[in-house]
Amino acid sequence: MPPEQLRKEWSCTDDRSLTFDPSKMTELLDHDNHEMRKKFREFMSDPVMTPRYDIPLAEEREVALQRLQRICDAKFISVTDFWTNPLRIFAAHEISAIIDPAMATKMTVQFNLFGGSVVKLGTKRHHDQLIEGIDTLDDVGCFGLTELGYGNNAVEMETTAVYDKESKEFIINTPTTLAQKYWITNGAVHAKHIIVFAQLSIDGDNKGIHGILVRIRDDNMQIMPRVRVEDMGHKMGLNGVDNAKLFFDNVRVPRENLLNRYSDVAEDGSFTSSIDGGRDRFLTVADQLLSGRICIASMSMGAAKACLTIALRYAATRLTVGKRGKSDTSILTYQLQQRALLPLLARTYVMNFALDYVKDMWTKQQLNKGDSKGHAEVVTLCCVIKAIVGWHVGEVATVARERCGGQGYLSCNRFGSYIGSSHASMTAEGDNSVLMQKVAKERLAKFKPRIPEKVAEDLSNDEYLHHLLDARDMMRFSELAVKLMSAGRKGLFDTWMLKESDLVQGAAFAFGELLVSDQSQAVLESCDDSLKPMIREIRRLYLLDAVQRDLGWFTAHELISPQTAKQVNEAVAQSCRMLAHEVFD
Amino acid sequence: MPPEQLRKEWSCTDDRSLTFDPSKMTELLDHDNHEMRKKFREFMSDPVMTPRYDIPLAEEREVALQRLQRICDAKFISVTDFWTNPLRIFAAHEISAIIDPAMATKMTVQFNLFGGSVVKLGTKRHHDQLIEGIDTLDDVGCFGLTELGYGNNAVEMETTAVYDKESKEFIINTPTTLAQKYWITNGAVHAKHIIVFAQLSIDGDNKGIHGILVRIRDDNMQIMPRVRVEDMGHKMGLNGVDNAKLFFDNVRVPRENLLNRYSDVAEDGSFTSSIDGGRDRFLTVADQLLSGRICIASMSMGAAKACLTIALRYAATRLTVGKRGKSDTSILTYQLQQRALLPLLARTYVMNFALDYVKDMWTKQQLNKGDSKGHAEVVTLCCVIKAIVGWHVGEVATVARERCGGQGYLSCNRFGSYIGSSHASMTAEGDNSVLMQKVAKERLAKFKPRIPEKVAEDLSNDEYLHHLLDARDMMRFSELAVKLMSAGRKGLFDTWMLKESDLVQGAAFAFGELLVSDQSQAVLESCDDSLKPMIREIRRLYLLDAVQRDLGWFTAHELISPQTAKQVNEAVAQSCRMLAHEVFD
Repeated sequence: MPPEQLRKEWSCTDDRSLTFDPSKMTELLDHDNHEMRKKFREFMSDPVMTPRYDIPLAEEREVALQRLQRICDAKFISVTDFWTNPLRIFAAHEISAIIDPAMATKMTVQFNLFGGSVVKLGTKRHHDQLIEGIDTLDDVGCFGLTELGYGNNAVEMETTAVYDKESKEFIINTPTTLAQKYWITNGAVHAKHIIVFAQLSIDGDNKGIHGILVRIRDDNMQIMPRVRVEDMGHKMGLNGVDNAKLFFDNVRVPRENLLNRYSDVAEDGSFTSSIDGGRDRFLTVADQLLSGRICIASMSMGAAKACLTIALRYAATRLTVGKRGKSDTSILTYQLQQRALLPLLARTYVMNFALDYVKDMWTKQQLNKGDSKGHAEVVTLCCVIKAIVGWHVGEVATVARERCGGQGYLSCNRFGSYIGSSHASMTAEGDNSVLMQKVAKERLAKFKPRIPEKVAEDLSNDEYLHHLLDARDMMRFSELAVKLMSAGRKGLFDTWMLKESDLVQGAAFAFGELLVSDQSQAVLESCDDSLKPMIREIRRLYLLDAVQRDLGWFTAHELISPQTAKQVNEAVAQSCRMLAHEVFD
Repeated sequence: MPPEQLRKEWSCTDDRSLTFDPSKMTELLDHDNHEMRKKFREFMSDPVMTPRYDIPLAEEREVALQRLQRICDAKFISVTDFWTNPLRIFAAHEISAIIDPAMATKMTVQFNLFGGSVVKLGTKRHHDQLIEGIDTLDDVGCFGLTELGYGNNAVEMETTAVYDKESKEFIINTPTTLAQKYWITNGAVHAKHIIVFAQLSIDGDNKGIHGILVRIRDDNMQIMPRVRVEDMGHKMGLNGVDNAKLFFDNVRVPRENLLNRYSDVAEDGSFTSSIDGGRDRFLTVADQLLSGRICIASMSMGAAKACLTIALRYAATRLTVGKRGKSDTSILTYQLQQRALLPLLARTYVMNFALDYVKDMWTKQQLNKGDSKGHAEVVTLCCVIKAIVGWHVGEVATVARERCGGQGYLSCNRFGSYIGSSHASMTAEGDNSVLMQKVAKERLAKFKPRIPEKVAEDLSNDEYLHHLLDARDMMRFSELAVKLMSAGRKGLFDTWMLKESDLVQGAAFAFGELLVSDQSQAVLESCDDSLKPMIREIRRLYLLDAVQRDLGWFTAHELISPQTAKQVNEAVAQSCRMLAHEVFD
């Protein structure tokens, strides 16, 4: 059925035009590096990028590396972008994850975790030795932070780096099974280098966790003596990534291998550091985890967009049973399909805007070092955006697959790949729920109660909807503050971890959803006039959907009357109907 | 930390004992065929059943077949169980799906869809020819119902079976691309036979859809002339299943190949049938889809139990950061882990009971043919249980994977396999949402408004919680009835498909959740006294969780006051805490 006829069939009375110029919308969503993104998208039609299935694990890994090699050869990403144009790195991640999430994962370890750490924690000698090879992939590296026993408690890691004054070397050692470096990307096959994070010890004195470069393979890719590598094996997704377990049996490396920008050990073993205290030293060396979270959020965003594009195109063209019992009606005509997909489309747009904001904040902070107050804010933003976008892509991939039925189940239609990568997004670089605990804690520390301005109850007013999210954020953090105060210092752990976990998660989530509303409002105000009607409707659907998802809370706290609560579903449905029209166009 | 100490750490004050004898609980959950289940579980430790990863598609399919062959050799399933002990078939599905969901899928097509149709639609000549070979796997078969263009509109299928009086043969033909038989399990490699469902035509007169046996491979597994088989290719899961597209180019088969229990064609072309009308004939030949839905629900149940067992064992033993900052505390101690996993555990138990009820109802109906009123009821039950258990296993697999972090991502820990199979459960044998439309329609046809008895608002009273589910079911169907009446006959399609989709889905879901509450109450009343405290608490957590998931609706409709609504989360958390204790034991 042609769109015109469909509109009649839907008996849709609302005819506010949401029409927009797609190239302008792409520009808005792309946010930065427009020329590079355009070229990169064209480049992605290279045959090496065509997805392949039913190939052995070993080959899958080679394919992922080859793809990354092409991208590096064409210079779409450089570790030096961290100095000049960090947004370009995030753009490369987003687009790469659409094509091959495994390749993008290898990219993020090579350029952000490994490369970024060399650039930022290292000094000239490391830069001279490695930067070129990082960009060309001649020097593939790993980021050796996580240990089996200390996944969410890295400060307690057991790997040691003992300075030996005699030989002027560090001795790197894995003392226990729990201390093995675990899940290390690029480690099983492709890496020559690893930054080992270890407890630095001089004359029996622990100086905290530091990063030290260690060769794990020679130039012929033979594993170095006293290094043991075990393959993590087959995974539910991202099998192009070669993850490893790594063990070091008193491996000796020169003193100069310490990444010594912030801390250094002189030949005689004297230790100097511009950072006081073990915890702060750890946070400094682990700094790439922050941009790593933006990289993962960017990859998630790419995957979410891909899923929705595939699902909506299918919904608009697949014909099935209609009014007359014949298979003549596109499934996007069905309200069932609209209600499943369009709120997710709206969420993807507004999260894109929020992620752009976080990228900008991080970049500003990065290029303007020293503002530690701003830094704390950015930490919180990176955590919350990684978590909410990570969960979002999981939901998008799952729902989009389901709405495409059997076709969605075929590997060639890509959802399986995105479901696999979405699970990695949810728990890699910090389990989302653990990150949310961190978000709640950091927000709470800065929390100042205020009374959000009242807005009259009216679902047609977006300001009212935003007010609901604002009030929820305020009320949850207030409640949490009260509970913690009454628990006292002694009851802190129990309250946080054993009794009020839902409130902790709920507060962080409220903050995240409010951030998304704020940032999409900012985009609505600043964007090209021709895009405003569509962006307004998208933000409105997001707000309505957010309210509906948590309607029990809003009504229990009497922020919405029962009467109005009953109308929320129809308001969401109406917004979906309007947006579905535009998808057909 | 030992459990004793953990209990103290949780500062849990409630000490009602939920202790039970695990063997008695297993017996209750197993429901039937206890001896066979016990032996089958032991049999599953055969090395051929050990999961294998990173093997080529072709080998994966052979492995799945070999496993099924072992089960058949050991006679754990027979198509004749449909005559004597149908529950044994469902039991075989549940246990098989824990080990290898792909093998279980091949099983369900061979024994239920293909085998069951031969048994029930065929007559002595088909039984004599095939029953033995079905049981031994010498005669692997397919169920050729679905066509590419008519996935949810099978009555409109295009494949034809034209009777040729001269040769006394049927001519089977695929007239268009859309008419290809699509997704046909066992078709790509292993099947010798297919039941082709086709529009039966005699002298140009369409007699409706009938099933006809067609050879697709000879005894040497060479494809028969005029049959074309294409491989569906790689899938996001269940790659041990060989799905195919099948095309027939005027294939001739003897008149006797018609499965002629209900309809027959004499040599002279005269047609007789004990069923009037095309739609009823279609429903009769597609009857195995009903037990097929129970098979899928049984497979889903097996997978859900496996996921929760793996996740809870891991949660009880994995140590991570605790009160003193050391990695000494099992993650099940965390409320976050309890809140994620225990409501799903409770749901799995009560859905098990509801599924048992549906199995019993179906079996009773099956062994006591002719009661068409009861049959309609069973149809509804099979649809609703398949949908809610299918969605449930999807949620369980996803959440359990996430709560196991990186370990959950490794293929050897099985979640990837269950996530893959859960997606098949959600849209195979009827897209869950489409089945729910059917459920709503059928329930509505029998709907009689009544006013549920009021129960005083009290979250500690399970009768009140049950009352909420009861009232929701009643109110949604009433609302739907009113909307359809005011839409009138002309507005029916629009109201159902374009305007009130959420209400339709919500009504069916309310019916499903009420059914689960009813059936778990029946089990609570009839089960061994020693199990009652645990079953009561499990059902209570299910009820609380169900109310919390839909709290917005309950408060909007003023079935719960805001004040009580605020207490729901703490009630759920408290119940989770109590059950978590028992998991440690």
